[in-house]
Amino acid sequence: ENILEAKPIVYRQIKVPQPGTKEYCTDSGLVVPSVPYELHKRLLVAAERHGLSLERRLEMTGVCASQMSLTLLGGPNRLTPKNVHQRPTVALLCGPHVQGAQGISCGRHLANHEVEVILFLPNFVKMLDSVTTELVLYCKTGGKQVSSIKDLPDSPVDLIINCLDCHENTFLMDQPWYRAAADWANQNRAPVLSIDPPVSGQGLAVEAKWSLSLCLPLPLAEGAGRVYLCDIGVPCHVFQEVGIRYHSPFGCKFVIPLHSA
Amino acid sequence: ENILEAKPIVYRQIKVPQPGTKEYCTDSGLVVPSVPYELHKRLLVAAERHGLSLERRLEMTGVCASQMSLTLLGGPNRLTPKNVHQRPTVALLCGPHVQGAQGISCGRHLANHEVEVILFLPNFVKMLDSVTTELVLYCKTGGKQVSSIKDLPDSPVDLIINCLDCHENTFLMDQPWYRAAADWANQNRAPVLSIDPPVSGQGLAVEAKWSLSLCLPLPLAEGAGRVYLCDIGVPCHVFQEVGIRYHSPFGCKFVIPLHSA
Repeated sequence: ENILEAKPIVYRQIKVPQPGTKEYCTDSGLVVPSVPYELHKRLLVAAERHGLSLERRLEMTGVCASQMSLTLLGGPNRLTPKNVHQRPTVALLCGPHVQGAQGISCGRHLANHEVEVILFLPNFVKMLDSVTTELVLYCKTGGKQVSSIKDLPDSPVDLIINCLDCHENTFLMDQPWYRAAADWANQNRAPVLSIDPPVSGQGLAVEAKWSLSLCLPLPLAEGAGRVYLCDIGVPCHVFQEVGIRYHSPFGCKFVIPLHSA
Repeated sequence: ENILEAKPIVYRQIKVPQPGTKEYCTDSGLVVPSVPYELHKRLLVAAERHGLSLERRLEMTGVCASQMSLTLLGGPNRLTPKNVHQRPTVALLCGPHVQGAQGISCGRHLANHEVEVILFLPNFVKMLDSVTTELVLYCKTGGKQVSSIKDLPDSPVDLIINCLDCHENTFLMDQPWYRAAADWANQNRAPVLSIDPPVSGQGLAVEAKWSLSLCLPLPLAEGAGRVYLCDIGVPCHVFQEVGIRYHSPFGCKFVIPLHSA
């Protein structure tokens, strides 16, 4: 005879030091608070200190973001041996920063899975090391790379992945390559997935249908579309170090949808 | 009017220099040949040369192996907020080598997803750097670690993950800690998942229900159970460098079942 009483479900399992401006919840009702960018940054720095290097994070973000993208592209219905002559096309727009490197990692995994990837990355004389490393690996996939918007397709692609923005350098938005890429994205009629988009004070240059936040969400603007959260493997004691009480909201998944609470 | 003729499906898309002793096929009928260990090793070395470092591989293997394990543990039915008081238990048996490091990475991601993980790793004065790094990160999850078989549970766990073997050092099998761990696994009645098991000439110390091979399968023995293949992100031009003509058999997945052809 089972005399154990079911304990009540605790929905508020994540506690942040300064409860943010925005809260989300998962499909099963767990509350996921947003965190300010400064706290998010401290969390990643603490994780790096314990060995969760940028390189590891890039790999994991790339795998999980590509899994989400493959689902958005139609998943098993689209990517079968029968459909090999109708491969989906993804335009990947990257800036020269960590967010761009995350995008290139995602693009590599997509190209590995026989998706037609066209990477736009502006030409710079000197690049961040992590961008260069990702680029070397990406080039081994046979995926295309262009540095001019003129070389992006005129017709709608299946998906645009937007990694143009970084969190700290908002004057990127004034550069000609950025504006050209944003205009191209807005004119092409493909749906947009933004990976790791910043909290935008002054509005987004490209409206997203979906946004993928990493680890814990920032308080994103409306233009970010439907918010998804990606597990990037930060262990719970690292959350503790920066004052966050954390229980995973992911269940058996690595990418979950969030809803405005 | 659609006048395009459907082209015939090519099922033999992967070609290896010396066709191996064993062939597998995927659910959709694609042929996946096995490769000898020496060629598998050359492939990973070539990938490392282009920047797919051991660290990246450990992260990706850990993520994909934990995704498979979470499915084996019952997936969304088992890991819900309602079941938080009945967390599944995994015993993770690791040797002091790269295969062990892969296991610890998997264990970290499982522990991050609220699985109760008990890691067995024998005590050594000096350890491989990659094992140490994984261990530091694992310890931040709150997962348990034991170095004696006596501290493993007496009752059956939900899943045993076997990473005791490495590919080159078969005399590990004669060491007391190895034999004790293998005996414990055979006496506990939990099903066994082996990650990256070697081609075993002299029989396996622990019979597996499932085996997860990385990148391309080795010709595994019967005791390896049902074989699964894990994508570890090697781009197709790297396969070319070692003489393999490669098209991804993964479709939109990162772990797929293989069948004896």
